[in-house]
Amino acid sequence: MRIALAQLNFHTGNFGDNLQKMLHAMEHARQERAEIIVFPELAICGYPPRDFLEFSDFIRQCNETAVQLAIACRDITAIVGCPTINPNIKGKNLLNSALVLREGEIIAARHKTLLPNYDIFDEYRYFEPNTAFEVVECCGKRIALTVCEDIWDIGEDPMYTVSPMDELMKQQPDLMINIAASPFHYEQAGLRREVMQYNARKYGIPLYYVNHVGAQTELLFDGGSLVVSAGGHICHEMAYFKEEVGVFESDHLTETNIHEQSGHRQELFARVGLVHDALVMGIRIYFEKLGFKRAILGLSGGIDSAVVLVLACEALGASNVRSVMLPSPFSTSHSVSDAVSLAENTGSPYDIIAINDIYDAVNNTLKPFFGDLPFDVTEENIQARIRALLLMALSNKYGYILLNTSNKSEAAVGYGTLYGDMCGGLSVLGDVYKTGVYELAQYINRDREVIPGSIITKPPSAELRHGQKDSDSLPEYEILDKILYQYIEQRQGPRELIAMGFGEGLVRRVLKLVNTSEYKRHQTPPILRISAKAFGMGRRLPIVAKYLS
Amino acid sequence: MRIALAQLNFHTGNFGDNLQKMLHAMEHARQERAEIIVFPELAICGYPPRDFLEFSDFIRQCNETAVQLAIACRDITAIVGCPTINPNIKGKNLLNSALVLREGEIIAARHKTLLPNYDIFDEYRYFEPNTAFEVVECCGKRIALTVCEDIWDIGEDPMYTVSPMDELMKQQPDLMINIAASPFHYEQAGLRREVMQYNARKYGIPLYYVNHVGAQTELLFDGGSLVVSAGGHICHEMAYFKEEVGVFESDHLTETNIHEQSGHRQELFARVGLVHDALVMGIRIYFEKLGFKRAILGLSGGIDSAVVLVLACEALGASNVRSVMLPSPFSTSHSVSDAVSLAENTGSPYDIIAINDIYDAVNNTLKPFFGDLPFDVTEENIQARIRALLLMALSNKYGYILLNTSNKSEAAVGYGTLYGDMCGGLSVLGDVYKTGVYELAQYINRDREVIPGSIITKPPSAELRHGQKDSDSLPEYEILDKILYQYIEQRQGPRELIAMGFGEGLVRRVLKLVNTSEYKRHQTPPILRISAKAFGMGRRLPIVAKYLS
Repeated sequence: MRIALAQLNFHTGNFGDNLQKMLHAMEHARQERAEIIVFPELAICGYPPRDFLEFSDFIRQCNETAVQLAIACRDITAIVGCPTINPNIKGKNLLNSALVLREGEIIAARHKTLLPNYDIFDEYRYFEPNTAFEVVECCGKRIALTVCEDIWDIGEDPMYTVSPMDELMKQQPDLMINIAASPFHYEQAGLRREVMQYNARKYGIPLYYVNHVGAQTELLFDGGSLVVSAGGHICHEMAYFKEEVGVFESDHLTETNIHEQSGHRQELFARVGLVHDALVMGIRIYFEKLGFKRAILGLSGGIDSAVVLVLACEALGASNVRSVMLPSPFSTSHSVSDAVSLAENTGSPYDIIAINDIYDAVNNTLKPFFGDLPFDVTEENIQARIRALLLMALSNKYGYILLNTSNKSEAAVGYGTLYGDMCGGLSVLGDVYKTGVYELAQYINRDREVIPGSIITKPPSAELRHGQKDSDSLPEYEILDKILYQYIEQRQGPRELIAMGFGEGLVRRVLKLVNTSEYKRHQTPPILRISAKAFGMGRRLPIVAKYLS
Repeated sequence: MRIALAQLNFHTGNFGDNLQKMLHAMEHARQERAEIIVFPELAICGYPPRDFLEFSDFIRQCNETAVQLAIACRDITAIVGCPTINPNIKGKNLLNSALVLREGEIIAARHKTLLPNYDIFDEYRYFEPNTAFEVVECCGKRIALTVCEDIWDIGEDPMYTVSPMDELMKQQPDLMINIAASPFHYEQAGLRREVMQYNARKYGIPLYYVNHVGAQTELLFDGGSLVVSAGGHICHEMAYFKEEVGVFESDHLTETNIHEQSGHRQELFARVGLVHDALVMGIRIYFEKLGFKRAILGLSGGIDSAVVLVLACEALGASNVRSVMLPSPFSTSHSVSDAVSLAENTGSPYDIIAINDIYDAVNNTLKPFFGDLPFDVTEENIQARIRALLLMALSNKYGYILLNTSNKSEAAVGYGTLYGDMCGGLSVLGDVYKTGVYELAQYINRDREVIPGSIITKPPSAELRHGQKDSDSLPEYEILDKILYQYIEQRQGPRELIAMGFGEGLVRRVLKLVNTSEYKRHQTPPILRISAKAFGMGRRLPIVAKYLS
């Protein structure tokens, strides 16, 4: 049997475009003599549809699109993810289904059993879990058809009380097909291969796994769809960060692991390269799906905005990314000159707009109210907010999206100005710690010096007062980022952190900074997610709380 | 048996204060000869603890606090909500439990079966549902002890497949106790009474229901704890928006419904009065729990900021609320004079800061980049952002929290400036439609004219260009709000809205405005929730989508 896996970038709620994309893939699969084409989880509507699922109009359009796809299934069977209505009156009203389509009919439907409801996942918000298990007979094969999470619950502390594949194995399937919507983070590719290999080995049958690719606001999907042999060897791995329709012959899977063969992939899958490619894709698709072409950003002469500029130029084309240097009375001369060198290296347009006159006007206006009170964080924030005001004015006048340049370390400890440098339509680096930003800069400079060395080597400074350095008020990033990683990604508390050897005073101070900055993060732009725990929809904390704060 | 219900305002993660509050209530109950004191769901840690539940340190502190409460249970039994560790390796790691404490011991634990995971609820994110049902023997009674949602699944389209009370009734309990954390919205009080009466009647035993009171960032809790007789009559209803410990004799519940007796409660429970009281409480507790005393807001001379000022004065005291009028070249003279009259009526301090000089400086700075391009939304936004910059500067310098004054109609259609009038630490009216703001103004003026009549009667205008009116770009609020209510609260799609008689063009235009403004709402402050569907944590939509847009 020949199976096509269609790893595509769907647009949430854009039923017409999603259908056209699937019809196009199906035509290609038919030409390649595929008998089955498999689309990812909830491909019909895009993943995640979120609360659109609560609208009966949305569900109706999902169903109508599935019917149109079925009508196109001439001489080919399609498997596609689609929300369907739960026929049982008890329980939630929807099921997260894999529909089997052929010759104008929905000939079978199987439903997701394990509904992820952690981190960025909210599936139990909408769907009733499946409780009935039956293989699908198709093209002379018995297929164990499951949806994403159904085959991921394999650890020693299982999150669910039932195993769909254990149930399906009672009916002796010939192969597994899993349709997925499994978002990227920098360890996901390795994890995904392990989980798929584990399943194939455990059940002793081949596994065909198809994932989404592309971006849905903050969520990135890397593709990497897989064919795994009954022996647990990876026979095929599809592209990363690219749409692809792969057609595979199921009866002759070789028991050879392509990952053991090809040492060069090690480099390809190195963490920094993955993060780089993910961010570039995330920017590109965010703009494409919103119908925008051009970006603007403030270029400070520091490393964060430098990296964002380069990534944006790769994503959108250098001519579509406009930088603005916005020196204040506290900016050093090298900040502007470094920023100019960088912009010229990328070939992207830039302007220099001094904020001094506006800064003076603000101070004069406030003079009757501030009197002789000393310069403090107020005046620092005023500078950051004037810059945001000017960038947003250019954005409004010319139709740019403003790119935010804050990194994860700053976002974590609240080192940033709300309505100032925390502005933007999209946060590019909000899930990358400062130490990771340096790694990205080195990766960008791997062949030639795009980012001037002086930008990489100078001590980080917000330059909002004379002689200011980040290290005046924050621990060194090498230490800070380690604590933040343990607290945010690994959910380690003060006791565990102190046991790891971090000083108690430092630990308490950092955790307090993180927890009391929740109110700032509440108002930040969507953050491209590249780690297993990003700020945003996957991390939900109260603003008003008194815990480690 | 005498039962105490402790309806208290807990502080998330503040274990020390929560324990002291419970010990104090317990002492009072003991003096009133209560045999049992009942605290609400997750009272130990505050509700909702959200992702703090993922920290083992947090769970450890919950357990330690429960143990300390148990030690204080001399001659009295306490029932208290607390997260506990799931002893089964399969399934999620936590249970949402009701602990029964006496003489230093945790003598029983019962766990929540029905885990709400819709709107603002995320309980299946953390908790495994209970599957075992057993009454608690206590003080000679057989108690059916359940947690909140366990007794709410009573409609014709049940969301769950099991009924905890149906199971517990097999063991012939003498009474029901339900510990709850049921957030306020303006129809919740009536709904709550109906649900509790339904349960008491259906099972033919009395019901003791205890709820939280207070505020947790955006979520408001109105209290209104209930004692319902076996006949389904409401024998006692505790205070709204106030902490209270009620002690009730369980063996002599009269079969009389206090709500049928007292016609005056109709008025008390009128929607606008409830919303008013909820918002005042929400502001007050937000400031209290964050340790702030003083608020600042921009007073435009329009109705939204007028209502916010009055609510803030009630919550914080007039002397703690500072208004700033920030006229631009486009402000009408009555805007400032109306705002001044209002501030003087409330007795709160105010300042007038013209933004003209800064506006000129911004325009001059941008002149080389804008050339002769016409005045457009850019210049409107510049004014709004200068105001925000000045308000935030005052906030930074003096330690105010800036109150946001946007209403739900504006937030819905994106009629507001990001980093401008959409700024603030707390959105007071973000869940109140414009028509509801007028109702609040009338309610505020019920005894005397606090808000000048001219503020109420003038046509709404942002005054960001000459002669501007909201009605230039938006439908009349009377119509707009009806469409928004059906779309947002009732999840009606275009087909249903058109069938209701709204014009197709108008419906499509409004829905498109709502859906394409998602990116703005992503960056708004937390919004005090007074409806069944507020913007914020209870409404989750993608920014990048193409549905009705």
